[in-house]
Amino acid sequence: MTLEGKLLIGQRAVRGSQVEIRAIDPTIGETLTPAYLGASKADVEQACALAEEAFTTYRESSLDERATFLETIASEIEATGDELIERAMAETGLTRARLEGERGRTCGQLRLFASVVRAGKWLDVRLDPALPERQPQPRVDLRQRHVALGPVAVFGASNFPLAFSVAGGDTASALAAGCPVVVKGHSAHPGTSELVGRAVQRAVAKCSLPDGMFSLLFGLGNEVGQALVADPRIQAVAFTGSRSGGTTLMATARSRPRPIPVYAEMGSINPVFLLPGALEHHGEDIAASFVTSLTLGAGQFCTNPGLIIGIQSPELEAFIDTASMRVTESNAQTMLSPGIHGAYEHGVEALAAHPHVRQVARGQAGSGSHQARSGLFVTSASDFLADSALQAEVFGPSALVVECADLSEMQRVAAHLEGQLTVTLQMDAGDLEVARALLPMLERKAGRVLANGWPTGVEMCHAMVHGGPFPATSDARTTSVGSAAIRRFLRPVCYQNLPEHLLPESLKDDNPLGVTRLVDGKREV
Amino acid sequence: MTLEGKLLIGQRAVRGSQVEIRAIDPTIGETLTPAYLGASKADVEQACALAEEAFTTYRESSLDERATFLETIASEIEATGDELIERAMAETGLTRARLEGERGRTCGQLRLFASVVRAGKWLDVRLDPALPERQPQPRVDLRQRHVALGPVAVFGASNFPLAFSVAGGDTASALAAGCPVVVKGHSAHPGTSELVGRAVQRAVAKCSLPDGMFSLLFGLGNEVGQALVADPRIQAVAFTGSRSGGTTLMATARSRPRPIPVYAEMGSINPVFLLPGALEHHGEDIAASFVTSLTLGAGQFCTNPGLIIGIQSPELEAFIDTASMRVTESNAQTMLSPGIHGAYEHGVEALAAHPHVRQVARGQAGSGSHQARSGLFVTSASDFLADSALQAEVFGPSALVVECADLSEMQRVAAHLEGQLTVTLQMDAGDLEVARALLPMLERKAGRVLANGWPTGVEMCHAMVHGGPFPATSDARTTSVGSAAIRRFLRPVCYQNLPEHLLPESLKDDNPLGVTRLVDGKREV
Repeated sequence: MTLEGKLLIGQRAVRGSQVEIRAIDPTIGETLTPAYLGASKADVEQACALAEEAFTTYRESSLDERATFLETIASEIEATGDELIERAMAETGLTRARLEGERGRTCGQLRLFASVVRAGKWLDVRLDPALPERQPQPRVDLRQRHVALGPVAVFGASNFPLAFSVAGGDTASALAAGCPVVVKGHSAHPGTSELVGRAVQRAVAKCSLPDGMFSLLFGLGNEVGQALVADPRIQAVAFTGSRSGGTTLMATARSRPRPIPVYAEMGSINPVFLLPGALEHHGEDIAASFVTSLTLGAGQFCTNPGLIIGIQSPELEAFIDTASMRVTESNAQTMLSPGIHGAYEHGVEALAAHPHVRQVARGQAGSGSHQARSGLFVTSASDFLADSALQAEVFGPSALVVECADLSEMQRVAAHLEGQLTVTLQMDAGDLEVARALLPMLERKAGRVLANGWPTGVEMCHAMVHGGPFPATSDARTTSVGSAAIRRFLRPVCYQNLPEHLLPESLKDDNPLGVTRLVDGKREV
Repeated sequence: MTLEGKLLIGQRAVRGSQVEIRAIDPTIGETLTPAYLGASKADVEQACALAEEAFTTYRESSLDERATFLETIASEIEATGDELIERAMAETGLTRARLEGERGRTCGQLRLFASVVRAGKWLDVRLDPALPERQPQPRVDLRQRHVALGPVAVFGASNFPLAFSVAGGDTASALAAGCPVVVKGHSAHPGTSELVGRAVQRAVAKCSLPDGMFSLLFGLGNEVGQALVADPRIQAVAFTGSRSGGTTLMATARSRPRPIPVYAEMGSINPVFLLPGALEHHGEDIAASFVTSLTLGAGQFCTNPGLIIGIQSPELEAFIDTASMRVTESNAQTMLSPGIHGAYEHGVEALAAHPHVRQVARGQAGSGSHQARSGLFVTSASDFLADSALQAEVFGPSALVVECADLSEMQRVAAHLEGQLTVTLQMDAGDLEVARALLPMLERKAGRVLANGWPTGVEMCHAMVHGGPFPATSDARTTSVGSAAIRRFLRPVCYQNLPEHLLPESLKDDNPLGVTRLVDGKREV
């Protein structure tokens, strides 16, 4: 397919009219063709109007129609073949293996939501049958199901050009819930976005769904995103990116005449607690696996382990020595974009220049453009507690080690942490009591608590929580990865004494959809 | 028990220090003793500090401990006996029968949440066991449960001095979720609040729970409420009241360094659609039952039917005639407070003075103080569509009939509606197609859709939704009545590869709590 550099508005491909956007191959620093022009306010409005129109049909699509649509998107993405991988490599500097894996994850995610839709648990059907004889007053017939919120605005993330972008988890879960989607594509990978967007367009057509099910807009700066979130037809927002980007969208969503929910995943420094027994018995291994996790994909994961907390001891010193050696040996890696590389360099320089931070290692310098050198820094717990700026995320392969005087200072560091996506305990059998003492505070700080692993892998499954207290996300009650992500786009509706012929399928007496239902508070299949 | 006019901060009863609050018996217009003094900023801070301290223990209380606590509160409220009913009658002008019923509802609600806690479904346990042999990568062990958000601020409502006040549904569901509660009592019924608050205090002591589980503060104006919502220890807010009160709390919660969820139920005009067949065959009966619902409890329900929508016809004229006659015959009723009565009079006068609204009936004038005369008004759909002010809630026994030219104008009125708690269809068998055409829009407007009933009864059960799109509530994804209300105060946490000894009870291998769990996406008991 020849990339056309266009916006996708419903089934049409439209030339934009605003500021030009061009992807840059970060490996060689060269601009790629074609150029994309930003969407106008009228383009945003048209996409939203089409989405609203599509919603009136799609919200009542059958479970099978919806699941088939998600599966068709996955097939169409696969059918795009190597062109997609090559374009994504050029636009992001990520490796073929990584992008092939990410494509698998993206299509797996769409198929997971297809199975979630078919199972129908998300409807959360509850029936409280009428009790006409009840005293002192009869009970009416009450039935509850969940319905879709309405058209959703999805913002593509830069660091997962497939899995958290045009047809990533946010789009998949919104479509699964019954919501048409308008995507604001990330300006760093417009060509990848167009290829995936075309695949979604084809799936819409193949499934004979309304045109407005899906649109893809581009725009430099905040204008298009702000217009999208402010549009009265948009009913929810999903975003993965920076804290400033997320909080800006939150403010826009709140200032609407009718506020809407924003699900913004805004990053995290993913603290790792090195407990004494683990350090003593496995310090060397932990240091090695830490640096592997730290430098994976040039550290460009929201779950990158950016903060290590240990207790001053010869074992901690040995850990820092080993980790320093590994960091020093680590090769430079190309970052996603010049902007991200610039921000990383800036963050690392600020740490190095901090009066209470010691730089203990930097990785190898690279020969290419926009390559990140890993970094390892050390500070004391008292300095960490005194300066909140040390909790700022440095997006990339850099970490800060915090040395605590003792366990109680480690507890204070835990209590001082901002909200996180993950918190990790490195522990062995002898650390159980220490871990038990820390755990309640860690649960309050993060959406996922790990033992003896590294947070960079985020499994797509039912139990996953990729979320956490503010500022990690805008809404700690939700997850953006895993089957529970569908809940973000649903609301309950109760039907009282509706005639059988008027009830939605999921609530009819004979349960034609065969979904699990809670009848009088008891689960029935 | 002698009322002391004090704030309850943990287990202590403390004299306030700010502006005096005195209840007024609206039936006779007389001030009641004792006087309550408002809480200072230090009182707010102390209550929040105690709540935070209590949370560290209570968040991990067992299901049985928590359920027993809720049941003990119910018993202690019942043990307060007639004193509670008499004080509530004096402070609200509500009848004995109504208040006895409401006490039953309040205690029933506490016991419902006790059973919800014990059943443990709210934990929403999900297990995805490790798959060490999976290719290309093994799956780690992942387990999810829900945990409590933290201390919750609850605002008592004026119109349900028991069921939506100190130990009402918000408090019951927050305690069920594992959250200590700080209540801002409503200034219209401080004595009732103190009596219930003392009952909760006794339950805390009897159950050997931490002092800070519960506090009750008073304060005139916004200051105490604002300080409470702004306190960093408060993690969620539940409110039932006016739109201005709710949106003010929303703004405060958002402007915190760390924003928190606000569950504000801000009222509704609860539109009722009179479909042609129903009007033709049952118009007389519907008019009679409408006026009964309209005037119930002086119309002081959030679910009061304040908007009637029909199609111009002799049948609609007959309906208006019958309803007018019933309204004209209806007796004046004492309202909850001078303030509410004043606002009602103001609202009715504004309707009567509106150039495009016709007053068709007013109820009997009363001889007592603060008595509301019912009101019935008529306007055309075109005027209704042209003036959003006609959607303003007039809290009390007043309704506006909107006459539509035809079905398509009725559809436009439906589309024009703001978010509502309820929407009702009066229909008979012949109206099925009309109802089917309206239903999708009505689902988008309200949390509960009724057929052939009246919205004023809100059943406490599993399928109930007492919620709806903004501005009916601040969060359409939730309900404040029914067992699902507990979800407002929970968030998911995922545990990855945690050693069995470190896992919470609900997630241990052998399921010691015996709760339903989703294992690999399949429901297991």
